[in-house]
Amino acid sequence: MSHSVNKVVLAYSGGLDTSIIAKWLSDTYGCEVVTFTADIGQGEEVEPARAKAQAMGIKEIYIEDLREEFVRDYVFPMFRANTIYEGEYLLGTSIARPLIAKRLIEIANETGADAISHGATGKGNDQVRFELGAYALKPGVQVIAPWREWDLNSRESLMNYAEKHGIPIDYQKQATKSPYSMDANLLHISYEGGILEDPWAEAEEEMWRWSVSPENAPDTPTYIELTYENGDPVALDGERLSPATMLETLNKIGGDNGVGRLDIVENRYVGMKSRGCYETPGGTIMMKGHRAIESLTLDREVAHLKDALMPKYAEMIYNGYWWSPEREMMQKMIDASQEHVNGKVRLKLYKGAVTAVGRSSEKDSLFDEKIATFEDDEGSYNQADAEGFIKLNALRLRIAAGRKG
Amino acid sequence: MSHSVNKVVLAYSGGLDTSIIAKWLSDTYGCEVVTFTADIGQGEEVEPARAKAQAMGIKEIYIEDLREEFVRDYVFPMFRANTIYEGEYLLGTSIARPLIAKRLIEIANETGADAISHGATGKGNDQVRFELGAYALKPGVQVIAPWREWDLNSRESLMNYAEKHGIPIDYQKQATKSPYSMDANLLHISYEGGILEDPWAEAEEEMWRWSVSPENAPDTPTYIELTYENGDPVALDGERLSPATMLETLNKIGGDNGVGRLDIVENRYVGMKSRGCYETPGGTIMMKGHRAIESLTLDREVAHLKDALMPKYAEMIYNGYWWSPEREMMQKMIDASQEHVNGKVRLKLYKGAVTAVGRSSEKDSLFDEKIATFEDDEGSYNQADAEGFIKLNALRLRIAAGRKG
Amino acid sequence: MSHSVNKVVLAYSGGLDTSIIAKWLSDTYGCEVVTFTADIGQGEEVEPARAKAQAMGIKEIYIEDLREEFVRDYVFPMFRANTIYEGEYLLGTSIARPLIAKRLIEIANETGADAISHGATGKGNDQVRFELGAYALKPGVQVIAPWREWDLNSRESLMNYAEKHGIPIDYQKQATKSPYSMDANLLHISYEGGILEDPWAEAEEEMWRWSVSPENAPDTPTYIELTYENGDPVALDGERLSPATMLETLNKIGGDNGVGRLDIVENRYVGMKSRGCYETPGGTIMMKGHRAIESLTLDREVAHLKDALMPKYAEMIYNGYWWSPEREMMQKMIDASQEHVNGKVRLKLYKGAVTAVGRSSEKDSLFDEKIATFEDDEGSYNQADAEGFIKLNALRLRIAAGRKG
Amino acid sequence: MSHSVNKVVLAYSGGLDTSIIAKWLSDTYGCEVVTFTADIGQGEEVEPARAKAQAMGIKEIYIEDLREEFVRDYVFPMFRANTIYEGEYLLGTSIARPLIAKRLIEIANETGADAISHGATGKGNDQVRFELGAYALKPGVQVIAPWREWDLNSRESLMNYAEKHGIPIDYQKQATKSPYSMDANLLHISYEGGILEDPWAEAEEEMWRWSVSPENAPDTPTYIELTYENGDPVALDGERLSPATMLETLNKIGGDNGVGRLDIVENRYVGMKSRGCYETPGGTIMMKGHRAIESLTLDREVAHLKDALMPKYAEMIYNGYWWSPEREMMQKMIDASQEHVNGKVRLKLYKGAVTAVGRSSEKDSLFDEKIATFEDDEGSYNQADAEGFIKLNALRLRIAAGRKG
Repeated sequence: MSHSVNKVVLAYSGGLDTSIIAKWLSDTYGCEVVTFTADIGQGEEVEPARAKAQAMGIKEIYIEDLREEFVRDYVFPMFRANTIYEGEYLLGTSIARPLIAKRLIEIANETGADAISHGATGKGNDQVRFELGAYALKPGVQVIAPWREWDLNSRESLMNYAEKHGIPIDYQKQATKSPYSMDANLLHISYEGGILEDPWAEAEEEMWRWSVSPENAPDTPTYIELTYENGDPVALDGERLSPATMLETLNKIGGDNGVGRLDIVENRYVGMKSRGCYETPGGTIMMKGHRAIESLTLDREVAHLKDALMPKYAEMIYNGYWWSPEREMMQKMIDASQEHVNGKVRLKLYKGAVTAVGRSSEKDSLFDEKIATFEDDEGSYNQADAEGFIKLNALRLRIAAGRKG
Repeated sequence: MSHSVNKVVLAYSGGLDTSIIAKWLSDTYGCEVVTFTADIGQGEEVEPARAKAQAMGIKEIYIEDLREEFVRDYVFPMFRANTIYEGEYLLGTSIARPLIAKRLIEIANETGADAISHGATGKGNDQVRFELGAYALKPGVQVIAPWREWDLNSRESLMNYAEKHGIPIDYQKQATKSPYSMDANLLHISYEGGILEDPWAEAEEEMWRWSVSPENAPDTPTYIELTYENGDPVALDGERLSPATMLETLNKIGGDNGVGRLDIVENRYVGMKSRGCYETPGGTIMMKGHRAIESLTLDREVAHLKDALMPKYAEMIYNGYWWSPEREMMQKMIDASQEHVNGKVRLKLYKGAVTAVGRSSEKDSLFDEKIATFEDDEGSYNQADAEGFIKLNALRLRIAAGRKG
Repeated sequence: MSHSVNKVVLAYSGGLDTSIIAKWLSDTYGCEVVTFTADIGQGEEVEPARAKAQAMGIKEIYIEDLREEFVRDYVFPMFRANTIYEGEYLLGTSIARPLIAKRLIEIANETGADAISHGATGKGNDQVRFELGAYALKPGVQVIAPWREWDLNSRESLMNYAEKHGIPIDYQKQATKSPYSMDANLLHISYEGGILEDPWAEAEEEMWRWSVSPENAPDTPTYIELTYENGDPVALDGERLSPATMLETLNKIGGDNGVGRLDIVENRYVGMKSRGCYETPGGTIMMKGHRAIESLTLDREVAHLKDALMPKYAEMIYNGYWWSPEREMMQKMIDASQEHVNGKVRLKLYKGAVTAVGRSSEKDSLFDEKIATFEDDEGSYNQADAEGFIKLNALRLRIAAGRKG
Repeated sequence: MSHSVNKVVLAYSGGLDTSIIAKWLSDTYGCEVVTFTADIGQGEEVEPARAKAQAMGIKEIYIEDLREEFVRDYVFPMFRANTIYEGEYLLGTSIARPLIAKRLIEIANETGADAISHGATGKGNDQVRFELGAYALKPGVQVIAPWREWDLNSRESLMNYAEKHGIPIDYQKQATKSPYSMDANLLHISYEGGILEDPWAEAEEEMWRWSVSPENAPDTPTYIELTYENGDPVALDGERLSPATMLETLNKIGGDNGVGRLDIVENRYVGMKSRGCYETPGGTIMMKGHRAIESLTLDREVAHLKDALMPKYAEMIYNGYWWSPEREMMQKMIDASQEHVNGKVRLKLYKGAVTAVGRSSEKDSLFDEKIATFEDDEGSYNQADAEGFIKLNALRLRIAAGRKG
């Protein structure tokens, strides 16, 4: 805030708000602005951002398709841990921020910029995620968070600023703007604000964008088969798909079947509760599928250890600590656990529900029909062993029950 | 096994297998047999067990309705912790065993019995749950587990034994016997064995007993409103219900909407994996409802601590350690966390899915619209604080990024 | 900072710095100042603070002896958990702050003050501990932290301020001031700064104040016997002592034997590492004694669960979250675990080391000589049970070793 | 027990008990016996075992020096985690068993043996550790545990068996046999039994073998300097030492200074409590040194995560799960954490106590004097940041304090 800035890399969506920020940065800090626009599957063209940036006189413009990198290096590693925040949330927004932070810093290094900037507000988690990532990757970087600094805190003052500085406003788009604050990437789309600020109010059907309502989903179920290698889904119904294509395809299939809607109140890292709605069709399918293939191939104690640590791992990602040594250390353990997580899962999708109906693994199954059977197991398991097992596990309980105190 | 037994209390269902056990105990150990039959909501009449026991010459016959106690003192306390085993299983079988174990021991104490017996096999979890409970509550008790001892290991030898000893066999019932091993109580019904022993095979529609298929569920959603007090559901759509009535009613509503089917491979405590299918309609609703009311009323760190410990708590219950000091100690913490978990939840049930669509709490809500709002918050939250928050949280990351090594 | 303040309660030591703060608060905020001085065993008279406060025109002066409350309600509950931060630190400073915070708020409520103030700097943990406590107990309170606000950041400017405002300076005391920043209460005395800022430099012998060096301790060991009730030490060598007297006495005995010195680098909550030296003679003895009595009376799984949660609990206290729902919830569990922690421990103190040499519990011992013996146990334990125990525990490992993948 | 055995590999110490076992195995199972004797630093010659085995007609005799492997691949990896069981025990016995188990199985594979055998009793932890390791590494192996099978349960019957079968008895050695059950390796020596079976009785001075009493240790302290690389001690006072030489040397220095004695009651995996005394001089030094170098070089959250998981890791090793997927997975995380744990530690040893007095790391220190200093930090740290940090961390507490419920 107080230091002078020479050049700043801005996470630029091409929309009105970040266009205003670009102008404001240049005016306030007298610095050069580099824009960075990424396609992470938000479903909007990113190329139009170029012309908009050029129109504002931006000279260094980065526009990139990061979809494959996003799914391969962020989404998949997270799903290996069955990561869920507060029992419900699949972390769709959280997991996209570290990638943006990393590219902002890399571009800062390439362009000789000494600062980065973003359009996240001072109340949310995203500012934390962007900035923790930035500081971890480039400790001396300056961070400019306009929403925490400027006095353009109403829609009206923003519009005035835009008009005054010649930033084009698409009035039609503004007029039909969604009442919700939304964020989208390949993993999900989120909704906050509007009537959702009353946690008792049900979300309106027209809010949802990625999925049909369960009521409008097909009357017959859809079955799919996912192939897993080392914990990642690599093929759908036998066809190998790249990470991003896999997630896009699952989003489509899931959305068509009403899968993946979520409506929760969550705890933000900055200390408040907030209401959010999410659509995560592909992620919901992947979560079910991964649990199912792990159930067949993962050792019990490995699975339980993963479950015990998962909430901590989810918290790290939610709070913005992807680029921290503790997250990297934990990832080592999670990845090591996936060596044998290979095989196929059969899933049924029907009007909002995903059910695992079959799982198999040629080489890595730990399910032993000979031992588990209710029929004669021909000596694979000696039932008499159970007595000793129980007796010794009970010993401490018996001694305690027998004490005088 | 080696000690002499004077009197044994048998967990007696009234069915063929435990009738054979009653006879076998008396013949093998030359001891008196006391039968104990409990209604825990399995959906079968328990009173007929009296005549059957009398016909075998049993003198001390206990038949009890434990449904309220079961839900109030076992199911509800477990749900306060949002307990799920291995990410999926709601522990329907596990949670019923401690109550049976407790009553077996209490009846042993009342009748002067020195042993208890049960019909669980040597491969499963239930033997462990019964016996750990028994030993914890009466350290010197003897436990007779016929399935681990006798040589009646095929259906044929069992039938021969029954015929030889004059135990009446309902041949029609035997002929139409389900191919699945089933267990039911107010919380769920479970299925194992048969074609489920192939984890790739989908369960047949006719297997499921408590719920209609999502496909056959009504085409319009059902909305319900649950009122929570200290973490327990106490009223449905404004009407106060006793614990057992609450669960029964939710089972009915859930089952009618195709809610609560589960198909998993799980890790047994005795070391093997097994495939199980479960119907837990009411429990599935309660899980969603409890998460929703907690999301509004529970402090973030309390919620996260609960989430971190939940897998351990689930493991304790699954493995049979309900009557252990570690479970009791953890319950103290869980119960303490529920003081403010009061309010209402609105849920939508539709073709297998349960969605929370609203939650409110007059006195205990921690959701502060003034702070969370995207609109002007009139100074409730100072966005500038976020900078210091992020800067200090980033400090260790920055120092690490700057080190020479 | 920005709001107007009517009356502020200041944590007042009676020393020069907090006297300057009292004056500065009055001048800067034009508010009334209430002083609060507590004896928590820091080893200095608190009564002289009265005259000093009066001399500055303070009208509401609180001087209190909180030693018993401090040990009974803060130190003892913490020791029930065997609390150690980062493997070494017994949290002597951390545990005193919540009590001060609580009294500051209670006095604010009594005197109608709308603010509190303290003399902790902006780099340390204590500001956090004071302020989190204050906000948790009185959410609307204002906190004034002069060290974060004023420009008196050198010793020289402070002295000038004092001279200018007529605050008496004891120049002799200033001249012989320790080069270390110190903090003391009944649990410990701490040292920071000076040559300790070089983590390679050994602390000078003359720095330590509460203990003789091990080299100068007696050449013969001292034996003591501690009696525990519900996890707290209640008698020393058979004589019942109040909590504060117990800790004072153990400090004396420990200090005489060179017990309780510690030299560490620790991680502050605000993100930096710092070097600290501590003397905790009585606490070191209590830690060893508590572990010893628990080893005899606590169930294994209860003990392991406590050990697993202890680092989290220590972190809560270190970071200043004593007055948080998560700490209170965890305390419920810890306290519940201590029901049977009754008995006697015999300890040997010798030149800096404390060793447990004996432990007994008439009613609550879980040590069963009949079972543990290497001699003939007359059938208390059936060694054959071990085979089944091992076989079933090994089952999952064997299945995994046998898989094809 | 029931299966036929062709060839068995016996963990053979060369002493009377395992000589009797060798004979008993051959007689009882009519099988060939292979002996395996390892030097893991127990302090006795292993070569004499050859002649003894030959005298019994053993044809395949393995005698190996495993000291370097033991310390490098088992002790050091464990110390990277600061592993302590139940707050006190450094796991000296536990950590040696996995190596023996591994070699037993490797030798079984080399010699075509189908079974292994050991001399551990049915009451202790060692049987579990040997057998879990064996089953994990060779799932079909048979394990013969004579102490759980035979009827030679008194010293007298053992001696009779030896005499009858021509096993030479050193009567002088038997007569002067220690009253304690002892076990030794490079990490420690342990004592159980005898008067230790009374947990109130203090161990006799003459019991201890590896260390002088603190009272008899030198009157002047000894200072040493340990160099760490990736968490392992690699040089002592500047001289590089192999892992085994390092531990041997530290044992000598520690033992000379009375360091490393421990007297505890511990919880065995088989369900009972037992009293044990241990001497771990080098290990005690290594624990202190490792904590000290980590305190300077490890990130706070990494350190706290390690502390939170350490009890679980210690439990795994104590209970015998070294060769399990969960231990291997956790080791991956621990090893990854040690990348930056490089530097030097200065330790003071004096009459039983080890104190860290200095620590430094040229490239990996995270201690930043500029930031931590009590003096002017020239702007490295902005104290004003602390206000925002505290305010946001307090937000949830304030909202909770303000609720109506």
